[in-house]
Amino acid sequence: MQLTSPGTTLGVVGGGQLGRMLGEAATPLGIDLVVSDPTPDAPASPVAREQVVGEFDDEETVRAVAEKSDYLTFEIELTDPDVLERVSEETGTPVHPHPDTLRTIQDKYVQKERLSEAGVPVPAYRKVDTADQLRDALEDLGYPAMLKAREGGYDGRGNVPVESPEDVEAAMEQIAGPAMVEEFLDFERELAVMGCLGDGERDTFPVTETIHREEILRESVSPPRASDDVRERAREVAHDVLDVMDGRGVFGIELFETTDGEVLLNEIAPRPHNSGHWTIEGCHTSQFEQHARAVTGLPLGTTERRQPTVSANILGDVDGRQQARLAGVEQAFETDRLGVHWYGKREVYRLRKMGHLTLSGAEPVEDLLAEIRAVREALRFE
Amino acid sequence: MQLTSPGTTLGVVGGGQLGRMLGEAATPLGIDLVVSDPTPDAPASPVAREQVVGEFDDEETVRAVAEKSDYLTFEIELTDPDVLERVSEETGTPVHPHPDTLRTIQDKYVQKERLSEAGVPVPAYRKVDTADQLRDALEDLGYPAMLKAREGGYDGRGNVPVESPEDVEAAMEQIAGPAMVEEFLDFERELAVMGCLGDGERDTFPVTETIHREEILRESVSPPRASDDVRERAREVAHDVLDVMDGRGVFGIELFETTDGEVLLNEIAPRPHNSGHWTIEGCHTSQFEQHARAVTGLPLGTTERRQPTVSANILGDVDGRQQARLAGVEQAFETDRLGVHWYGKREVYRLRKMGHLTLSGAEPVEDLLAEIRAVREALRFE
Repeated sequence: MQLTSPGTTLGVVGGGQLGRMLGEAATPLGIDLVVSDPTPDAPASPVAREQVVGEFDDEETVRAVAEKSDYLTFEIELTDPDVLERVSEETGTPVHPHPDTLRTIQDKYVQKERLSEAGVPVPAYRKVDTADQLRDALEDLGYPAMLKAREGGYDGRGNVPVESPEDVEAAMEQIAGPAMVEEFLDFERELAVMGCLGDGERDTFPVTETIHREEILRESVSPPRASDDVRERAREVAHDVLDVMDGRGVFGIELFETTDGEVLLNEIAPRPHNSGHWTIEGCHTSQFEQHARAVTGLPLGTTERRQPTVSANILGDVDGRQQARLAGVEQAFETDRLGVHWYGKREVYRLRKMGHLTLSGAEPVEDLLAEIRAVREALRFE
Repeated sequence: MQLTSPGTTLGVVGGGQLGRMLGEAATPLGIDLVVSDPTPDAPASPVAREQVVGEFDDEETVRAVAEKSDYLTFEIELTDPDVLERVSEETGTPVHPHPDTLRTIQDKYVQKERLSEAGVPVPAYRKVDTADQLRDALEDLGYPAMLKAREGGYDGRGNVPVESPEDVEAAMEQIAGPAMVEEFLDFERELAVMGCLGDGERDTFPVTETIHREEILRESVSPPRASDDVRERAREVAHDVLDVMDGRGVFGIELFETTDGEVLLNEIAPRPHNSGHWTIEGCHTSQFEQHARAVTGLPLGTTERRQPTVSANILGDVDGRQQARLAGVEQAFETDRLGVHWYGKREVYRLRKMGHLTLSGAEPVEDLLAEIRAVREALRFE
């Protein structure tokens, strides 16, 4: 194991905020990034040695990245596992996590099948291809339920609630493709665990509570307001999920804590995840440093939490698309122990993730949460 | 105060490791770097939006940086304050700290004069232009003493110890230019304080103990093994030094603690400094984020220490110049709470600063120091 100059080059399909934070974390380790993104001057571009401009699933683009890199990874699921696998074989550049894992995760139905076969607890679900199948499924699962496109959905896109039999036809038409339906859970709270697979080692970051609205993450809280038993159970479920994953890297594992204290898997992201951004300030090793270490074959860092920490997303609050210009930031910069993360996206639109804030301090986490929300309250796009 | 995309551009004369760590810290704040350095692909280059290749004191180079930037700063004293001042006036790009401060600091004799006039305690010193003047001065100051080139020295370069009257002629010849001589202090330990001047505010980071060998920093220790009185005195001296500085930014203030508990100023660097690298992991706001905030007019962040923290430099250990290739890094990556910072320099030579390690943890700091030294002991350039 050596440090060299130029150092290890990590190729990343996707150059959004995850790529940007990966670059910020990788440089100190002597790891340089080459990213690809269809948007020139993407968020990761200022901290990458180079950006290749091209679509996430474009083979020529992915090959160009792989050829410049010692290892290949991705920060977005919209890439094509077949392309990744082919390019990796042709160029000899290892890709992590394994494209099979991406295949499994990309199809929400296959994901649920693989996980429940492996003994991971999941909400009740059915594959549905027609309105009749959906109606039949809901006789078992009951109303309301959530109809989900099997592929391509994120941040709530591709999800349609089905409240009653009258909604069935319209819901199927809205998805307009392969779908699955899932029972509505009566959950106490949502949790997340960042899992890490290294070279012959595995670990999990401390459990995080995640707070969503309109199915988009608003805040993360660590430690979560859950019992020790629930935290331990969440950790166990995360380890079971990691058993199903193939290859190295960080995985965002989203969970439900039900009202009767059960922990069920919601979804997995085969990459660093919004619910783990708090680790940048909150842990000795951030999820981004951990991903860079894992993919390039370095030992994993400790996942120990340094301090109770909360994060809050900065989301677009405007109608239409406009130049990104965030006012009211004084309080953020004046608040002690508060980290500001701006993603450098050129345009803002409603609910677009534009940045996030992180606050570390003493418990109770309610106080940290109230303080960070007050800071975010002062922000507005102009 | 707003966050925009593209964000504030910070122009930096110098693209070494200080520029690199400045870039790593500035990106999350939405601040992009443009750096200049005579070496293409300098350490800061991967995290800068652009590198202009040119000498530190070349007016055309500095102007090119200023024209692309909203604010101008420098991470090396080898730039020319007249050039900075002229370019700043012509382009309208504010430069921080003020070139006058750089002028004062560049000439070690002028620096001592200005500071002692302002009441800052300094070791006894004399300006000496000839061997006769040096001999006269040493009749007062006593042997041994340190003869210093007034300009251009750093990391011990430009310093010549004078042990006895027989050394006088040779020492003056070695300096071969304007010089000053300073008494040898019987010091207990060396300390450093990173001072910060913001827009109408000032602050200091917690006092650091610095351990030198061959006049090059080897380790930093915070908190220092000094009494509360000495720490408080160091803070006071640092505040007095900041009174003499003009413009915004972070200043590395190096101090002596004498055997009788006095605190005297050694030297000042008008920029982030090696003795403050521990703040990256050890404080909520690092010296680099603080410098970026200060120069661009953002509020200063808290200087609170998160945890006892030590840093150890990785220095070149080879004869001649060779490709940089550091082996034995397993232990570094396997040690919990240990941060690795590799500067990406292409070539290594004896005592060149190639990277550093940082370890946070519980006191006593002796244990942290022993642990980090053991990790460094395993490293070797091949």
